[in-house]
Amino acid sequence: MTQPTALSGSNAVADLDARTTELDRGHVFHSWSAQGGLALLPIAGGHGTRVWDHAGRTYLDFSSQLVNVNIGHQHPAVVAAIQEQASTLATIGPATGNLTRGVAAQRIAARAPEGFNKVFFTNGGADAVENAIRMARLHTGRDKVVSTYRSYHGNTGAAVVATGDWRRIPNEYARAHVHVFGPYLYRSEFWATTPEEECERSLRHLRRVIDCEGPASVAAILLETIPGTAGVLLPPPGYLPGVRALADEFGIMLILDEVMAGFGRTGEWFALDAYDVVPDLITFAKGVNSGYVPVGGVVISDPIARTFDDRVFPGGLTYSGHPLAAASIVAALDAMESEGIVTHAKQIGADAIGPGLAVLAEKHPVVGEVRGTGVFWAMELVADRSTREPLSAALMGRAKGELVGRGLLPFIADNRIHVVPPCVVTADEVAEALATYDEVLSLLDEEL
Amino acid sequence: MTQPTALSGSNAVADLDARTTELDRGHVFHSWSAQGGLALLPIAGGHGTRVWDHAGRTYLDFSSQLVNVNIGHQHPAVVAAIQEQASTLATIGPATGNLTRGVAAQRIAARAPEGFNKVFFTNGGADAVENAIRMARLHTGRDKVVSTYRSYHGNTGAAVVATGDWRRIPNEYARAHVHVFGPYLYRSEFWATTPEEECERSLRHLRRVIDCEGPASVAAILLETIPGTAGVLLPPPGYLPGVRALADEFGIMLILDEVMAGFGRTGEWFALDAYDVVPDLITFAKGVNSGYVPVGGVVISDPIARTFDDRVFPGGLTYSGHPLAAASIVAALDAMESEGIVTHAKQIGADAIGPGLAVLAEKHPVVGEVRGTGVFWAMELVADRSTREPLSAALMGRAKGELVGRGLLPFIADNRIHVVPPCVVTADEVAEALATYDEVLSLLDEEL
Repeated sequence: MTQPTALSGSNAVADLDARTTELDRGHVFHSWSAQGGLALLPIAGGHGTRVWDHAGRTYLDFSSQLVNVNIGHQHPAVVAAIQEQASTLATIGPATGNLTRGVAAQRIAARAPEGFNKVFFTNGGADAVENAIRMARLHTGRDKVVSTYRSYHGNTGAAVVATGDWRRIPNEYARAHVHVFGPYLYRSEFWATTPEEECERSLRHLRRVIDCEGPASVAAILLETIPGTAGVLLPPPGYLPGVRALADEFGIMLILDEVMAGFGRTGEWFALDAYDVVPDLITFAKGVNSGYVPVGGVVISDPIARTFDDRVFPGGLTYSGHPLAAASIVAALDAMESEGIVTHAKQIGADAIGPGLAVLAEKHPVVGEVRGTGVFWAMELVADRSTREPLSAALMGRAKGELVGRGLLPFIADNRIHVVPPCVVTADEVAEALATYDEVLSLLDEEL
Repeated sequence: MTQPTALSGSNAVADLDARTTELDRGHVFHSWSAQGGLALLPIAGGHGTRVWDHAGRTYLDFSSQLVNVNIGHQHPAVVAAIQEQASTLATIGPATGNLTRGVAAQRIAARAPEGFNKVFFTNGGADAVENAIRMARLHTGRDKVVSTYRSYHGNTGAAVVATGDWRRIPNEYARAHVHVFGPYLYRSEFWATTPEEECERSLRHLRRVIDCEGPASVAAILLETIPGTAGVLLPPPGYLPGVRALADEFGIMLILDEVMAGFGRTGEWFALDAYDVVPDLITFAKGVNSGYVPVGGVVISDPIARTFDDRVFPGGLTYSGHPLAAASIVAALDAMESEGIVTHAKQIGADAIGPGLAVLAEKHPVVGEVRGTGVFWAMELVADRSTREPLSAALMGRAKGELVGRGLLPFIADNRIHVVPPCVVTADEVAEALATYDEVLSLLDEEL
């Protein structure tokens, strides 16, 4: 761990922050942003739940960046594994065998349900979803994919159709997407008033859409096990088993997207472990190695894997099974196991985060609902508790500024503050964050 | 450099190769393959143009894996930069400033033509192309993308349309793709017999397709500067300037895909430097850091960058501007500059690879044509020189086996052997490879 305080007070290092900002403004084009007025925090280092700039200002990271740094910043075992692998073999193509890659695949498959043995590695979550969809389409010979409006599965949609060679042809499906509503009782699309009603009605809605689209045209139902950026929308208990039954009825593949929810975030290895459901394909990224090296992938159930024993799988990428990524996966999963990090995430959610957020919800009229599990929570902020009108974008912007000004990096989406620290967050850090949220929620209360 | 010979003769290390194969067969799902009969070389380490297995068998890497290891395997400066960055800050989200990321963006922009200042980082080539297409569509307000049949631009096409939230909406374009034929005199689609004729006719064909599609509906023409996997198809001198003029005439953006051709492969920093053309967007990956960490990106001309000063760019990804990738880019580009690696690639192509392949073409009837530049060459193998009938897949498979058996890792696509070693390949290594090709081509000659 580099001590951030060792850097404080020096002009030379403070200049590095200015230099970071200057280069950033001049040369870096940022995701999901208008580029003109960006003023981004320069981050130089981190450890556990904290990050800091060059001048030594520290921040409590309750975003886990993009909900990916599950093991915390700069875990020494993962850093060492990357360094060691870099010194041996930093890169090798996918058309080779590589021991580190094989061990990583084995470790991941071992955490999946029985009957999942093979892993296809990608560079991140989006191409994991891409390849899961491709597998489902080729396995079923159907093209439609049903997913929900409240979802995020990644941001790619054109490269393979721009490609001219034969690899384009088995992938020309791009319009066959259908969207449905999923369960979300706080803002029910089904006029439901209980979790049971929400569950039953959302399944009925899904069945009606599949009926109308033609069940024999549907290759896959694609769901985040717990929709994440869309609001940490925990499904009611019977929903996922109900979707599984519906999929089975019509020979549809069930893809569960665990990119954000997997590998400790919910206090389980896979979020699906808590929901009595076995999908056909599982996508992952983020938590599998906490994003220390870009990677994602698909865990494949045996029947789908067997489809491609004799048939060419028309997908692939240069960095599939990258050894640096593989080394970081093995180290991260081993450390999460040996240090009890997944169990800790479950416990601190149940003992500290959940109860603490419940107190805030009780106290602050601006909080409409809190929900979550493990280190995966959302506080939904409202202008009016009775109408549930979302808090304005302007006030959400103010909330963000007030939180950052108090040294807390938040994850904010629409009218929600997602409370998503690393799995290794301590009780003291939770208490510190709750106190900060408390102050800022009080400021927001005054605006109502 | 780990000495591979130090490992030889030990049962323990030979067992690591068997263990690699066992894990690979059991748990790793591979790109572009039927999975059943795969027997992939286990690779444990490498240095420069050579790689080796655990038992110490070495191979001369004339594939650069997937034409990405431009700087050679295990360049010490790039390894050290990864290790150093890992010890400081392995990962940070894209919504921060980061000094290493800013320096990497500056280094890349400095190699691009004048008027290119900003870089959007992705995880690889496919999502680089995705985001270049997105920028062109939003900048022009048009949707169609014209690319060539003989091309490869990556393998993603569904994640953002599966996504339900607002980020899907500005990206619902996926069917607006049109394919044309590009110049390829050896197998002309235009009944041309000279480079001038091929150039003029392929431009005429492109214009006719754009006319018929409606020029005002075309957002972008997307071309590999030199189509790579499609056959190292060097464009005739006037082609790219002609495409540029056509794009200008109709307000169409020109995207040059430099994922494979960029950063030294052709003996230039960008392949476009040799073609008197300035595009609107440049995509890159592979050679920018030799794939030591997964990364790609888009270099953006100022007018397109300005479009997103006040308007949200609806694209992004968790690992955009990843610090490990950025550190490896800075180190790789600096080493390529200080060690004269790009100049070396140009020289060794002109002095050794080109002349050597010309001798093989002269000697072996199975060689139909050789073409290339720098360390980017293709030998086109034919069953019959007069009809130019491609050599059969069975004989290409035999060629691959014979080459690997002689300790050379080849890059084989359709009926071609691509001669694509790292840019640091030495004259002795070229001579060794040429001798190996010579032997194997003699075996193939006998089959004609």
